[in-house]
Amino acid sequence: MNTLNLPSVWLQDLTWEEVDGHLASDQLILLPFGSTEQHGPAGTLGIDTFVATGIVEDAATRMGALCAPPMWFGDSPHHLAFPGTVSLKTETLMAVVRDVCTSLASHGFRQIILVNGHKGSNLAALGSAARDLHENHLPDVMFAVADPLHLARNAAPHIKETNEHHGGELELSQVHFRYPGQVRMDRLTDEGADFARVFGGFVGADLFGPAPDGVDVIWSSREQRDFAPTGSLSSSLGVESDKGRRFHEHIVDRLCEVITWMRENDGPLAAANDSLKQQMS
Amino acid sequence: MNTLNLPSVWLQDLTWEEVDGHLASDQLILLPFGSTEQHGPAGTLGIDTFVATGIVEDAATRMGALCAPPMWFGDSPHHLAFPGTVSLKTETLMAVVRDVCTSLASHGFRQIILVNGHKGSNLAALGSAARDLHENHLPDVMFAVADPLHLARNAAPHIKETNEHHGGELELSQVHFRYPGQVRMDRLTDEGADFARVFGGFVGADLFGPAPDGVDVIWSSREQRDFAPTGSLSSSLGVESDKGRRFHEHIVDRLCEVITWMRENDGPLAAANDSLKQQMS
Amino acid sequence: MNTLNLPSVWLQDLTWEEVDGHLASDQLILLPFGSTEQHGPAGTLGIDTFVATGIVEDAATRMGALCAPPMWFGDSPHHLAFPGTVSLKTETLMAVVRDVCTSLASHGFRQIILVNGHKGSNLAALGSAARDLHENHLPDVMFAVADPLHLARNAAPHIKETNEHHGGELELSQVHFRYPGQVRMDRLTDEGADFARVFGGFVGADLFGPAPDGVDVIWSSREQRDFAPTGSLSSSLGVESDKGRRFHEHIVDRLCEVITWMRENDGPLAAANDSLKQQMS
Amino acid sequence: MNTLNLPSVWLQDLTWEEVDGHLASDQLILLPFGSTEQHGPAGTLGIDTFVATGIVEDAATRMGALCAPPMWFGDSPHHLAFPGTVSLKTETLMAVVRDVCTSLASHGFRQIILVNGHKGSNLAALGSAARDLHENHLPDVMFAVADPLHLARNAAPHIKETNEHHGGELELSQVHFRYPGQVRMDRLTDEGADFARVFGGFVGADLFGPAPDGVDVIWSSREQRDFAPTGSLSSSLGVESDKGRRFHEHIVDRLCEVITWMRENDGPLAAANDSLKQQMS
Amino acid sequence: MNTLNLPSVWLQDLTWEEVDGHLASDQLILLPFGSTEQHGPAGTLGIDTFVATGIVEDAATRMGALCAPPMWFGDSPHHLAFPGTVSLKTETLMAVVRDVCTSLASHGFRQIILVNGHKGSNLAALGSAARDLHENHLPDVMFAVADPLHLARNAAPHIKETNEHHGGELELSQVHFRYPGQVRMDRLTDEGADFARVFGGFVGADLFGPAPDGVDVIWSSREQRDFAPTGSLSSSLGVESDKGRRFHEHIVDRLCEVITWMRENDGPLAAANDSLKQQMS
Amino acid sequence: MNTLNLPSVWLQDLTWEEVDGHLASDQLILLPFGSTEQHGPAGTLGIDTFVATGIVEDAATRMGALCAPPMWFGDSPHHLAFPGTVSLKTETLMAVVRDVCTSLASHGFRQIILVNGHKGSNLAALGSAARDLHENHLPDVMFAVADPLHLARNAAPHIKETNEHHGGELELSQVHFRYPGQVRMDRLTDEGADFARVFGGFVGADLFGPAPDGVDVIWSSREQRDFAPTGSLSSSLGVESDKGRRFHEHIVDRLCEVITWMRENDGPLAAANDSLKQQMS
Repeated sequence: MNTLNLPSVWLQDLTWEEVDGHLASDQLILLPFGSTEQHGPAGTLGIDTFVATGIVEDAATRMGALCAPPMWFGDSPHHLAFPGTVSLKTETLMAVVRDVCTSLASHGFRQIILVNGHKGSNLAALGSAARDLHENHLPDVMFAVADPLHLARNAAPHIKETNEHHGGELELSQVHFRYPGQVRMDRLTDEGADFARVFGGFVGADLFGPAPDGVDVIWSSREQRDFAPTGSLSSSLGVESDKGRRFHEHIVDRLCEVITWMRENDGPLAAANDSLKQQMS
Repeated sequence: MNTLNLPSVWLQDLTWEEVDGHLASDQLILLPFGSTEQHGPAGTLGIDTFVATGIVEDAATRMGALCAPPMWFGDSPHHLAFPGTVSLKTETLMAVVRDVCTSLASHGFRQIILVNGHKGSNLAALGSAARDLHENHLPDVMFAVADPLHLARNAAPHIKETNEHHGGELELSQVHFRYPGQVRMDRLTDEGADFARVFGGFVGADLFGPAPDGVDVIWSSREQRDFAPTGSLSSSLGVESDKGRRFHEHIVDRLCEVITWMRENDGPLAAANDSLKQQMS
Repeated sequence: MNTLNLPSVWLQDLTWEEVDGHLASDQLILLPFGSTEQHGPAGTLGIDTFVATGIVEDAATRMGALCAPPMWFGDSPHHLAFPGTVSLKTETLMAVVRDVCTSLASHGFRQIILVNGHKGSNLAALGSAARDLHENHLPDVMFAVADPLHLARNAAPHIKETNEHHGGELELSQVHFRYPGQVRMDRLTDEGADFARVFGGFVGADLFGPAPDGVDVIWSSREQRDFAPTGSLSSSLGVESDKGRRFHEHIVDRLCEVITWMRENDGPLAAANDSLKQQMS
Repeated sequence: MNTLNLPSVWLQDLTWEEVDGHLASDQLILLPFGSTEQHGPAGTLGIDTFVATGIVEDAATRMGALCAPPMWFGDSPHHLAFPGTVSLKTETLMAVVRDVCTSLASHGFRQIILVNGHKGSNLAALGSAARDLHENHLPDVMFAVADPLHLARNAAPHIKETNEHHGGELELSQVHFRYPGQVRMDRLTDEGADFARVFGGFVGADLFGPAPDGVDVIWSSREQRDFAPTGSLSSSLGVESDKGRRFHEHIVDRLCEVITWMRENDGPLAAANDSLKQQMS
Repeated sequence: MNTLNLPSVWLQDLTWEEVDGHLASDQLILLPFGSTEQHGPAGTLGIDTFVATGIVEDAATRMGALCAPPMWFGDSPHHLAFPGTVSLKTETLMAVVRDVCTSLASHGFRQIILVNGHKGSNLAALGSAARDLHENHLPDVMFAVADPLHLARNAAPHIKETNEHHGGELELSQVHFRYPGQVRMDRLTDEGADFARVFGGFVGADLFGPAPDGVDVIWSSREQRDFAPTGSLSSSLGVESDKGRRFHEHIVDRLCEVITWMRENDGPLAAANDSLKQQMS
Repeated sequence: MNTLNLPSVWLQDLTWEEVDGHLASDQLILLPFGSTEQHGPAGTLGIDTFVATGIVEDAATRMGALCAPPMWFGDSPHHLAFPGTVSLKTETLMAVVRDVCTSLASHGFRQIILVNGHKGSNLAALGSAARDLHENHLPDVMFAVADPLHLARNAAPHIKETNEHHGGELELSQVHFRYPGQVRMDRLTDEGADFARVFGGFVGADLFGPAPDGVDVIWSSREQRDFAPTGSLSSSLGVESDKGRRFHEHIVDRLCEVITWMRENDGPLAAANDSLKQQMS
């Protein structure tokens, strides 16, 4: 199953007949969700989408799976004060997820993995939409929502050297490795937000590090321009291609394991659906 | 400021004139969001709301702050197969948050803390709605979203003795302590979900413990009834009032510190809004 | 059937197994809808919700029925200029009704009574949502919408001594009786709106009295603050616990008769659904 | 002001320049809302709209006011089982009201009267939309919602001879008088619903008569076809043109008084808006 | 089939029993969609609706078909700066189309023709709603969307003498012929928009003539008042009843052919639905 | 102005500071909208998006303008029965357009060109959203909606040799030229739909050719699979790179002229906005 006899892993590069043929033997698809959002002085606006497309393309290639085309726009209100940022309402993104997944399920796709490159920020929309779809509309489609924050939860601290937040070392290294040219290596910066001063010690400065007993303090893009004028929330001085490779490959490795498990899964999740199908028929 | 000269901390127990008077000296309000959702054989359907109301009432009493009445319905599709569970669509809950916060802001409330007792599950709606409100509609209202999962992130492992997930030791202990009678002590169970078997090692079994490099696997309520027939996802055998007290008091303590910080905050978040106000005037 | 072998009539105070057991013998549930809205100088903001919860709790207790937790927020735009008032958009409240009733119907509840304590104002949302649900989504669930205005249509004039409108004698007496402490007895007032002057004789000043051949004149909360600065639209000087008791008990008595009728109903409404079921099977 | 120097009272029959000229001296407009809904064996599907257009045309002609074109579709789910009935969702009708009133207000209309011919059933949408518009979007537009049920509340019992409900004596007489040919005089019927049997004594059989202490029992169109197979809920045998004339003229007279009052109103409602304008300027 | 034994072709002028009887032999219905929108100094605001009602009434009369009542409000934002214009949001109009067609389909109507008199402007809403309905909700209802722009695509140039755009020769002639009195013959004008100057040669000045290789330039109603102060975008000096008759009759003739084809259609469109019905049964 | 001193014309390939700098001298942006939709046996699912991205990239490069990242999903319900097709609801696509344009306008973009590669089908959403945005929310942003159907209206007949509809000669030639590899040259087909048989002579078979006096007949994807089993609606046998080049270059040339005009425009559209700005300041 892991050898894809197709010209591409990308749905948009295939004809409908090629997709039709592939569906006979595999029903898994990866959906990359990113953003068009400022990533500090060194990162391009597409960083989050590049993270997502790099991950899904490599995992799909290795596993003989398909990918849907990327969603370039995400849920980014808190960056809107930085030129070039585009933000969808959460409800708009949920509607896109609903419409895309419903379309794919109608063709017979049965395992859908939403891969978020926009660390954290899209998860509200992706997770909520997937839960509603699976509970109320697509009970026999298995959904997973993947994010580098969780796929590299334990591995990241061994790779990075400094705090990782927005526009920082790990995400820029990953894109620098996978899509050379998307990081302005002459614009790396060690300017970041002073989390203690801004958030009173209630918000962690490292997405992969220990965090305080705290709360989620909501900030606006105007406030961010005040407390982080470059748009970078953590130092990017340590960006290196090799770090990016290690981070990226760990994520891809782990995602491939998820794919294998979802394809082969005959555990309780599948069983419940089997009994559902029996009731319905 | 910490002495509330009012008959109650609850908005619903005050007249509009009492609220009007209070607003002259304090503009902070706590909003409890819960759920009506199965919590295994021992926990009542209101557990999540009791968590939220207990926290806000105690913090408000200590700090001389106000609380809005509780929202008893949350985002619970994955529990709908268990009788009595009520679930709102994510969009419905977002609309409630938007309407309630907009109303409160129109009266002059300027620090709004959304306190979620429905561990995790409501956060998509609460966080998304708050980010949109703050960015696009209420730039001069400071928002925080609080959840026991984060307020006791580091403290919880020192209190609990087993994995904590849904219907487990800590949340039932907290409600057993704060609202005696809401836990059926004769129905405690050590039955929980076999996370490894169900989720292939990609989902952590302990919300306060280490988690694998994984993904979010979406499950339906029908599937949950299959893999966790009692509705309990982790053992509740260790429920004790004293554990609940320690967990609860830690959360309240920490929330009080958040309140103090938000009231006194003159850091970058406030500064950005000050400059905004100057531009507008 | 009228003896409830459960620790509480409230859904939130029961475990899912207790609800499951109860559903085997009874499928009726009462849903209290209120508001958080100014009620003049003497009434607390929660008055409408207390009206609703008092009614459903007493009727449910007597009849061995269940109650859902209260909805504390209602459709109150015309009171927003008074601090503490919270108003949902009509569409938001309709969405809540739809989601809650759909959840309850999925468990097997078959008679749903929406009990409105927010005299009149929520009825647009409750009635519209119930009609849509029953016609298009839940044909075999029987719905009723109850309001003190209608349950005590004929009885009220025999109990009250003055015009009854917003924040007046009857509703405050009812809450004063049922929830002592929720009415500031030292803040009763005979200030009310001069309906003739404000509404030109086209709007009745007494919700339980004769009304002119007129129209519904829409007023804003700003206008109300102008023509009724205390928020009271009718005199509350006559508030007495005993009046409240008589008003409340009449309503509960009558609601219990509705419950009996809905449970036993085998008339045309049930017959149509029986034939519907035959067509579907 | 009461002499309209225009070819028609209907907006659709005027050019924009004619409307522009009229707006210089009068800013009141009447909006007729009806339905396309079964009215028993004798009444045409357009009865409700004919009621509304007849009322607004006659009042506008007498008062020199303008009318918007009619909205032929209303909120009629409970009649959908009868061929020809068209029903809008309540939310759809609210959106229409919002868009139409916002358009008219942008041209300078300042008194808007929504006239409902669909007795009762559209009022949820019309009233809710108007309250939201006036509170949140159009504070300086005065809104009234008019319905024959209220404009003839006291007069109707002196005109009609039997119970009046759906498809009955008064509404058919009114249309028979105003739009001859819209009532099939050879299909009048004394078949109606047996309210006591169907609704257990909790719903009144006469919209203009005394009603029991009761509730609103929601019925579906399928149920109605069962308990009232002809679609008529009250006898139409007494239909007479002269009754219709008396009923219609009373309503028009009263509506003209409302128009006069709204045009001349300098009471509290206008005062609040004057102070609003002062604050804004 | 072409002889309608009914008092009227209009749904609103029939009783439900008359519609029920007609449905036994014919399931086609025409829905007229118009607007209330400025049409220059000579055309009334209702011109578009009159175009639609004139067409459907004449085609229905000739073919023994039914018509639904007109929708007087359309999608007209770009005319809002001219007094009297009413515009619905595109989403509102789509909701109306959805609700009306769903209602009609529930009665057994199987061929629905949406007839747009508002040249072009409503087509986005009508076409989008119809495509969604047919694909996702009403697969066995055949939909067509008709517009004079397309029904007279080839015929119009032989009738008109000048450029035809908004408020011009052909549409005013059509209404002048069909509804005498709706065109102010003493207000005809040769003032129109200078398309080359305003739109840089990228937008055609004649809806029935050759157009440049261009784009759709979006203009606002404020801009239109600037570049076409009378509201007329093309000369109306050539308005004549006989031109209107020829234009109108051509459209009606062609629409009657469409009706005949839809009624008798047993081609691929019907075949696909037949196989669909087989699968479902 | 036509020399772009930036690493890329694509927003996603630039940092926010690079965008910020560019905005100082140019405020025009091109937005490509496509689809993921079957294009017969030879065309890949991404054809429409490739059309759009090829056009905007080449025009932007020549003119020194910026492009937003592509929207890969469009309004394609009528193709859903062919595997791989993804369709958004029209309302979803409208929400995306609204959110993206609002974001871009907040940064100072003042000329927005929506470029549709999904011939015709997305235009309802794009045009409706743009009209609403320009009239009601973004009066000082100039919008144009571009589509190959209109940009090559006159040129196309001179390039193509056969009827052009879906999956045909011209669109495949264009993508074959611009993105070699996206057309399976060994799968070209002369199978197309028999328009006369399917649509009764009321729908034209050539999007660039003469069309009958007709209507828009709505077809579902199931019906299309019946009448055009390959998904191709017109012959693709004539696909040639050189034809594609001529078609593409004509479109790009013409779009560049639109860009020049929009940038330099000081005609009536700009004048209206100037006066608007004067009123607002």
